[in-house]
Amino acid sequence: MSDFENMLAQKVKSVEAVIEKYLPEETGYQKTVFQAMNYSVKAGGKRIRPLLMQEVYHLCGGEDEETVAPFMAALELIHTYSLVHDDLPAMDNDDYRRGKLTTHKKFGEDMGILAGDALLNYAYETAFQAFDGDTPAERVAEALRVLGNKAGIYGMVGGQVVDVENNGKFVEEDILLFVYEKKTSALLETAFMVGGILAGATREEVTKLEVMGRNLGIAFQIQDDILDVVGDEEKIGKPVHSDEKNEKSTYVAIHGIRESRQKVKEYTEESMEYLDTFKGDSRFLRELMLWLTKRDK
Amino acid sequence: MSDFENMLAQKVKSVEAVIEKYLPEETGYQKTVFQAMNYSVKAGGKRIRPLLMQEVYHLCGGEDEETVAPFMAALELIHTYSLVHDDLPAMDNDDYRRGKLTTHKKFGEDMGILAGDALLNYAYETAFQAFDGDTPAERVAEALRVLGNKAGIYGMVGGQVVDVENNGKFVEEDILLFVYEKKTSALLETAFMVGGILAGATREEVTKLEVMGRNLGIAFQIQDDILDVVGDEEKIGKPVHSDEKNEKSTYVAIHGIRESRQKVKEYTEESMEYLDTFKGDSRFLRELMLWLTKRDK
Repeated sequence: MSDFENMLAQKVKSVEAVIEKYLPEETGYQKTVFQAMNYSVKAGGKRIRPLLMQEVYHLCGGEDEETVAPFMAALELIHTYSLVHDDLPAMDNDDYRRGKLTTHKKFGEDMGILAGDALLNYAYETAFQAFDGDTPAERVAEALRVLGNKAGIYGMVGGQVVDVENNGKFVEEDILLFVYEKKTSALLETAFMVGGILAGATREEVTKLEVMGRNLGIAFQIQDDILDVVGDEEKIGKPVHSDEKNEKSTYVAIHGIRESRQKVKEYTEESMEYLDTFKGDSRFLRELMLWLTKRDK
Repeated sequence: MSDFENMLAQKVKSVEAVIEKYLPEETGYQKTVFQAMNYSVKAGGKRIRPLLMQEVYHLCGGEDEETVAPFMAALELIHTYSLVHDDLPAMDNDDYRRGKLTTHKKFGEDMGILAGDALLNYAYETAFQAFDGDTPAERVAEALRVLGNKAGIYGMVGGQVVDVENNGKFVEEDILLFVYEKKTSALLETAFMVGGILAGATREEVTKLEVMGRNLGIAFQIQDDILDVVGDEEKIGKPVHSDEKNEKSTYVAIHGIRESRQKVKEYTEESMEYLDTFKGDSRFLRELMLWLTKRDK
């Protein structure tokens, strides 16, 4: 492992500790939903969104863990609920995710629906705990506005709707980019923007952070398309060509591998363009962003 | 129509106007989900929850419509999402609600799931608009905490989980009352508490309001059980004995009609016990609460 990978592993571990602090105790009449929620969250993942939020928060000079921690957990809970519902039979109908049974396969379809609902609602309950910290209430309110907007119909859910409706169809680039921006970028924009807002970033800085998140998300998504065509099945943990099998349009299908690789490079560079304009230490964050868009799994 | 019924019809109309103001425009790539959301909300219902919130808000001396209106809409959106997901094939599998096709029958099961998610998330987005009003941010924050808590795993969703898990089983009274309190009372408690909190009610008053909402919800639910056995099919718009068909435990099944009627009376009285301790005019609210628990449909 490189120094970066060591540091990443360490940081992911500490982010997971932050998230676990907020998970419900598995006790009471409604125990099953607590178990289904915790199972879904603990199933793993790279914890990229809360990690990015934490890094941006520090980059912008934030020091009040009690305020950023609930938002970190909230963002991961929203990401998790979207996966749980995405896996349902009426959606992608997936039995496995990251080598484990999906929530509805493990707990039943009704509990899959309810656990997703529970996670989404609990995300907001968790975020509201940020009012208990020392950060001014108006910053928390602004962070909530961004979280709500980016997770909903004008953000992630909007992207999922268009994705679902165009499943199996060849779509034009404008629709494809709409889906990428909403389904993938929206929560990364949230990570960047909320990190900045809570730390007291200016309006202008928050706009820059939004652009950074958007470009990183698109780079990440195109890289995902590339891996789906050229990746090694063992490394990425899902069947290669799985998107092709579903006859999904991808960036690679429209532009080919060579141009797609060029685009990943461009979007990645654009996502890091403003990094040096912030006062804090951006070295780890820069490496993380590069790693995300250069990953081979 | 009685004077009360006339006034009720008028107030429901004005509550509906408040809610409609917040509904999304049906335009853009993700148009289908906007349509599915609006279809679900406009499908009707008694708008009891936002109406109660409005009445309690005025009862407690509240005057800032810009703050209570977003919460009224948010509460109705949460109620609506819970119905949309409840009707799904993996849940109650209902094709019709209030004589109209359920959302998933009209828009497809995937869109039923997504529209429910969208409504829940949009409820919070809407509630966050309350920060734009003149009410102090800490009151809005406290109202959000209550809304989140009562809608989630320790409230409504918790009740649904236990309800789903015990479907077809005969359950003891403690579990039945848990389901009634969570599935039905929780959102009524929200209506009462949020109305009070936003108006500046004291902590002690908010506790009273919670008790009022809880008792009203239980009275309402037992009355529902009674109507399900003795009601007139045409009046209540769903097949009588429908709960019996699913072999659901009900209060009537445990205690019989006579005792159930007595309990409705008791819970209703308890729900109105504190009404006169508030400074505002409670006449309409009292009639509304009586009407809700004495209804024959």
